[in-house]
Amino acid sequence: THNYRITLLPGDGIGPEIMTVAVEVLKAVGQQCNLQFDFQEALIGGAAIDATGSPLPEETLLKCRNSEAVLLAAIGGYKWDSLPRPQRPETGLLGLRAGLELFANLRPAKILPQLIDASSLKREVVEGVDIMVVRELTGGVYFGQPKGIFTTETGEKRGVNTMAYTESEIDRIGRVAFETAQKRQGRLCSVDKANVLEVSQLWRDRISALASEYPDIELSHLYVDNAAMQLVRAPKQFDTIVTGNLFGDILSDAAAMLTGSIGMLPSASLGASGPGVFEPVHGSAPDIAGQDKANPLAQVLSAAMMLRYGLNEPEAADKIEQAVLQVLDSGYRTGDIMSEGMKPVGCQAMGEALLQAL
Amino acid sequence: THNYRITLLPGDGIGPEIMTVAVEVLKAVGQQCNLQFDFQEALIGGAAIDATGSPLPEETLLKCRNSEAVLLAAIGGYKWDSLPRPQRPETGLLGLRAGLELFANLRPAKILPQLIDASSLKREVVEGVDIMVVRELTGGVYFGQPKGIFTTETGEKRGVNTMAYTESEIDRIGRVAFETAQKRQGRLCSVDKANVLEVSQLWRDRISALASEYPDIELSHLYVDNAAMQLVRAPKQFDTIVTGNLFGDILSDAAAMLTGSIGMLPSASLGASGPGVFEPVHGSAPDIAGQDKANPLAQVLSAAMMLRYGLNEPEAADKIEQAVLQVLDSGYRTGDIMSEGMKPVGCQAMGEALLQAL
Ligand SMILES: CC(C)[C@H](C(=O)O)[C@@H](O)C(=O)O
Ligand SMILES: CC(C)[C@H](C(=O)O)[C@@H](O)C(=O)O
Repeated sequence: THNYRITLLPGDGIGPEIMTVAVEVLKAVGQQCNLQFDFQEALIGGAAIDATGSPLPEETLLKCRNSEAVLLAAIGGYKWDSLPRPQRPETGLLGLRAGLELFANLRPAKILPQLIDASSLKREVVEGVDIMVVRELTGGVYFGQPKGIFTTETGEKRGVNTMAYTESEIDRIGRVAFETAQKRQGRLCSVDKANVLEVSQLWRDRISALASEYPDIELSHLYVDNAAMQLVRAPKQFDTIVTGNLFGDILSDAAAMLTGSIGMLPSASLGASGPGVFEPVHGSAPDIAGQDKANPLAQVLSAAMMLRYGLNEPEAADKIEQAVLQVLDSGYRTGDIMSEGMKPVGCQAMGEALLQAL
Repeated sequence: THNYRITLLPGDGIGPEIMTVAVEVLKAVGQQCNLQFDFQEALIGGAAIDATGSPLPEETLLKCRNSEAVLLAAIGGYKWDSLPRPQRPETGLLGLRAGLELFANLRPAKILPQLIDASSLKREVVEGVDIMVVRELTGGVYFGQPKGIFTTETGEKRGVNTMAYTESEIDRIGRVAFETAQKRQGRLCSVDKANVLEVSQLWRDRISALASEYPDIELSHLYVDNAAMQLVRAPKQFDTIVTGNLFGDILSDAAAMLTGSIGMLPSASLGASGPGVFEPVHGSAPDIAGQDKANPLAQVLSAAMMLRYGLNEPEAADKIEQAVLQVLDSGYRTGDIMSEGMKPVGCQAMGEALLQAL
């Protein structure tokens, strides 16, 4: 029996209720696969602000560092939206990414046949879509210095952020992307704005240089505006996409929405060493929090990603993913993915259906 | 009879052939409305590089400044893709925007009932979509200083661009956006990334402050990642969108692609004073250049935008737009918008159909 120390960060809104489901599912699959989980909870986001004044208390970061993987639910809510930046939930999330050096963010956007009608796109356009966005997560305009709101010589304010990448930052995310593509269809599309931005030109040069080390991968390049168009026009052309922090934020969300059901999508954030963080793509949905309405499946699939990418337990991950497909086949649907003829369930009941399926 | 001096910039690829159609249409509508056009041609993009070594010769900028409006077709092509940045076609376009201080870029994305099936989205999702993206065009990360590829202390390269806006830059594009919304449905959505970027926080603060001057406008704010999702999920929620240069580049293209036919979409770039530049959203399509296959309708609609926004001749603009709808109703289609049962035509024949309709 292997024993894994897992830090749970339930966060805000629907976070705690979907986390409960994921933990039960992990326990059940652990029993089947002879894995033991030593769960420790910690505070992040609004919950942490309320309790400690900080969206990422030092203790949380220590607990995370001191564990083999971190399972995060969701952060944020209206309540904390107008606090100054250092006390905002997002700042806690960015601090976690920086603190654990989570430079590689993997965001799958995969159409499930059971939910294809949820898409706003035509069936023939999205059928079979299976995209992995590899987003750089600790650099670019999110973290570049200088940044701030300064006063110019003429006395007016000027807001400034710096979009920057070094060669080594590009290389390390590039390698993750090429390796990810190797495990998939072998096609990698790098997205930048090299026709305008110097930072993108360096990005394109380095990714192109790396390609010689991965002769099995078919590399292409797109400008970000064209990539956004192509995602809408013909998403099946994409296999693996690699891009910087900001473009990845935008494109991974656009790709996610092609599926029509972001309540289904997990993500993984990986560092060079140390634990990864696994979390659903959707937000904390404060409007339905505590009402047993939330869809826990993205959280559960994030637990599966944790097993696969964080703990190298692919069998246990498979079991969870199978269970999710099975409850969908059985017709169980939370409100966000409900359609005619299906069985409406709440968050807890969905969890019970998953345990049943396992 | 009013006499307008118009600078024509046919540019590269399909540029010259679609420009020819637009000029014929302008002449025809001019006769009907008692307008005279004094056309002067100038070089830009690859054509200018080949002739002069520069993508924006000084003479071109002078001619533009010395006219009442500029009609641009398209620039760029494989041939010039690997030249150093100062000699690239895009650099000419950016120089034109800066040189004429074209800070406001209006990009409509409107679904035409005749072409609704061209969309990759479901009919019920896109039916009636009519979005105007107001994109800031002379600031942000496109122009911010410092920029370049520098060597760090450790000897590696670092690509840097600066995303910056001053209060006055935000205010002037904000005013254009509020005024644009006033002429439309009265709803303005400002898009930024204020949860992460200081430049966006200043953007949001200023746009919010401006709102008090426009009590008739319903203002909302979205983060750019969410905006990309919402465009895919439910585009009808949008009326007018205002955003910075980079976000506008991405979102206006995503919005354009919702229509499924970017060969139909014009745009306008306006300055504080001096001539505006009017151009199609699509590119120079070098692969079909010179084959009489190009769709000239976006170019023709750009001429209509020139009449409406640049020359304040709404009647003449109406006539052109009516003619475009009429040829579509008559079933004429270039290859890019062809569908079953329609009449396939080339670029020239489409032009003749337009003249007929006028
Ligand atoms: C909440 C926000 C800071 C975050 C980001 O921009 O990275 C989110 O949008 C995401 O994509 O995880
Ligand atoms: C060609 C390029 C420089 C340009 C831009 O990024 O602005 C184009 O994409 C556009 O949107 O007009």
